[in-house]
Amino acid sequence: MSNANEIPYKIYLEESEMPTQWYNVRADMTKKPAPILNPGTLQPVTLQELSGIFCEELAKQELDDTTAYFDIPTEIRDFYKMYRPSPLVRAYCLEKKLDTPAHIYYKFEGNNTSGSHKLNSAIAQVYYAKRQGLKGVTTETGAGQWGTALSMACSYFDLDCQVYMVKVSYEQKPFRREVMRTYGAKVTPSPSMDTEIGRKINAEFPGTTGSLGCAISEAVEAAVTQDGYRYVLGSVLAQVLLHQSIIGLETQTALQKYGIKADTIIGCAGGGSNLGGLISPFAGEMLRGENQYELIAVEPASCPSLTRGVYAYDFCDTGKVCPLAKMYTLGSGFIPSANHAGGLRYHGMSSIVSELYDQGLITARSVEQTRVFEAATTFARVEGILPAPESSHAIRVAIDEALKCKETGEAKNIVFGLTGTGYFDMVAYQKFNDGEMSDYIPTDADLQKALASLPKV
Amino acid sequence: MSNANEIPYKIYLEESEMPTQWYNVRADMTKKPAPILNPGTLQPVTLQELSGIFCEELAKQELDDTTAYFDIPTEIRDFYKMYRPSPLVRAYCLEKKLDTPAHIYYKFEGNNTSGSHKLNSAIAQVYYAKRQGLKGVTTETGAGQWGTALSMACSYFDLDCQVYMVKVSYEQKPFRREVMRTYGAKVTPSPSMDTEIGRKINAEFPGTTGSLGCAISEAVEAAVTQDGYRYVLGSVLAQVLLHQSIIGLETQTALQKYGIKADTIIGCAGGGSNLGGLISPFAGEMLRGENQYELIAVEPASCPSLTRGVYAYDFCDTGKVCPLAKMYTLGSGFIPSANHAGGLRYHGMSSIVSELYDQGLITARSVEQTRVFEAATTFARVEGILPAPESSHAIRVAIDEALKCKETGEAKNIVFGLTGTGYFDMVAYQKFNDGEMSDYIPTDADLQKALASLPKV
Repeated sequence: MSNANEIPYKIYLEESEMPTQWYNVRADMTKKPAPILNPGTLQPVTLQELSGIFCEELAKQELDDTTAYFDIPTEIRDFYKMYRPSPLVRAYCLEKKLDTPAHIYYKFEGNNTSGSHKLNSAIAQVYYAKRQGLKGVTTETGAGQWGTALSMACSYFDLDCQVYMVKVSYEQKPFRREVMRTYGAKVTPSPSMDTEIGRKINAEFPGTTGSLGCAISEAVEAAVTQDGYRYVLGSVLAQVLLHQSIIGLETQTALQKYGIKADTIIGCAGGGSNLGGLISPFAGEMLRGENQYELIAVEPASCPSLTRGVYAYDFCDTGKVCPLAKMYTLGSGFIPSANHAGGLRYHGMSSIVSELYDQGLITARSVEQTRVFEAATTFARVEGILPAPESSHAIRVAIDEALKCKETGEAKNIVFGLTGTGYFDMVAYQKFNDGEMSDYIPTDADLQKALASLPKV
Repeated sequence: MSNANEIPYKIYLEESEMPTQWYNVRADMTKKPAPILNPGTLQPVTLQELSGIFCEELAKQELDDTTAYFDIPTEIRDFYKMYRPSPLVRAYCLEKKLDTPAHIYYKFEGNNTSGSHKLNSAIAQVYYAKRQGLKGVTTETGAGQWGTALSMACSYFDLDCQVYMVKVSYEQKPFRREVMRTYGAKVTPSPSMDTEIGRKINAEFPGTTGSLGCAISEAVEAAVTQDGYRYVLGSVLAQVLLHQSIIGLETQTALQKYGIKADTIIGCAGGGSNLGGLISPFAGEMLRGENQYELIAVEPASCPSLTRGVYAYDFCDTGKVCPLAKMYTLGSGFIPSANHAGGLRYHGMSSIVSELYDQGLITARSVEQTRVFEAATTFARVEGILPAPESSHAIRVAIDEALKCKETGEAKNIVFGLTGTGYFDMVAYQKFNDGEMSDYIPTDADLQKALASLPKV
């Protein structure tokens, strides 16, 4: 149906075409994702329990697996208008470079200062916290995209923002830290001396440079010990996928506007926030029997939760303070090797994505980082945009698929999510440019060892 | 005429509304800018002389002060479509924050990987070099925006790109360097041992960290001593303002589309590439007696060429190898103090901007950098975009003007150019965040001293 002559380089929706509701794919799933469990009782977590950690409205969204659509409050839609609708770009130059009959499209979420799609959920979470009359929120950040997004959202709604940043990132990524500070956030290297758990870890492991697990524990402690604070998280959760559905909804509208039927939809997957958001509406069409798509999750070979993990209940954090979720996991004790896609270094996967994968609606691939950076460089040189290492996992598979089309002669419509930009990842690009980047794939023994830490549920 | 309810947050033109021609404001000037002079003969430079340094088509554009419109070649328009039309944004959130009756708009040029408007001219210059059958181009870069833009353009048209990067920036801005390398550019710290002038300077000043003047000299030497190479420059030149007129033309079209009559148009000014590009079409309307606007150039107080310089012939580079231009200048020997807006640290000003200023069509203001960063932070927190220090000069004056409207109750339409993003300027933001940023304003004695170096023409 598509007519190349009519399709612009960038499809921008009008503001009036922006979605006014988020879509909750769980509502269309006959077999729902398993409930999250209280880490103390190992029973399904209650709204009341969850409201101690998250603000109430978000706790409700987290537990609601039957309501298909949630209205996006006007205040959030107004904020969205500053950087949304995001463009769906026809990658004409990449197609030409690859000499492929495939039509390649990418939904670009990097045109905002946080540099990624994370802002879509940050602004929603902060809005609900503000509406509840809270003073502030706490969170952890590793690579820094989530922390940046959250600090922007908090500055907009004038809420206090406390970010525990893994110490090694705090020191090695001073620019990310300064962006957060510019937006008024208090950024603390973790482990710190501000929390009990931080002091304990510092005493136990003098000179430690921290870990995401430790930063989560500090952020949760800071939330529950301060009046008027809640903890917020940028991925994995059902509420996050709900907010991120705006990516997929806009993509759906843009494709419909030009009469394009996507064949293959590709997203990178760490905790699942981008992938889940991008594919939700399309998975919904599949679940309702309206359409068929090939949905592909792409993960790093160094952290292959979908392709090599097990589907089981596990802790969401290494500190074991958050609820347990049933998900594809490598074990909460799994330490991914030095991989430059910080946002994909998570041991588990969103329960929703995990369940869709288990039901066969999504397929998954793992890719090595040198091949990812090859794809990133090819893409950057012809399409102009310098992609984040995370996003480049999707580029890799989109290119692979387009090259297959070249062999078969098929003119498939390939859509992928370009989650963000790589301006703060130049150390990784430098390694690649200097030929010093290596690949690491965990052995079966590595994986077995980490899986031994799975809880007995 | 404007109706706030109808104006979206971001005005995006359709691709079909993009300008197909650049506008040369000199054609509408009765009194033209003075001709550029051969530094050897001090006579107006000829096309033949100029074609030894620049490629032919660009040399023609440089010397043509009568042709009002130049067709934008299809190949360049196709490239433009990857990141243009750029949005004209209604700063609703900033207006609300300032509680001003003014309507504020900004033309945002930072949504591309080079992070600034520089790409508009880089792609044009590289296209003409390619069409002439050249092998490559050479240039210098200080802050790195121009070098990044040029490397992107060269990678797109598969042309060799050699960038001489001021050594101190090469070492202090490794990320910028890596972006250029990712796009395939050869980046050499200047002074290098690759050129005669570089070796000479290294011998004379062991351990020097370089200067823009020296890097220009190396780049020009590299161009004239290699077969099939030409030198390219990202600002000051008439050809650059011609290409950058796309900024103003798009702004004009976007305003017309919504029936908005701008009252005040503000741009930051270093060499004049952005300001000249933004205001050209509006200055054209003024020159033709069709409309009146208040056009404001904003420069750093530490490098005040318009507000405190003299209007005279001067060297465009400290190495004194480039043609002389009549311009507002502080003297080619003027060394601006440590100012974080690297792109505005130029001793002179585009001849076209200088002449329009001299004729009274443009007014100018100088602002201190702490006030600039205050404005940048205010803007970032409400509008989301983290602005480049250069662009923030325009933000400062836009805010000042909007606050004046608050006093007078006027609902002026204020338009400013937001030239780029500040992702690679976080060292400066850190200084500001830590309260360690200072202001420096040259004394009259400083200026007198530098002006002593003016050539006797």
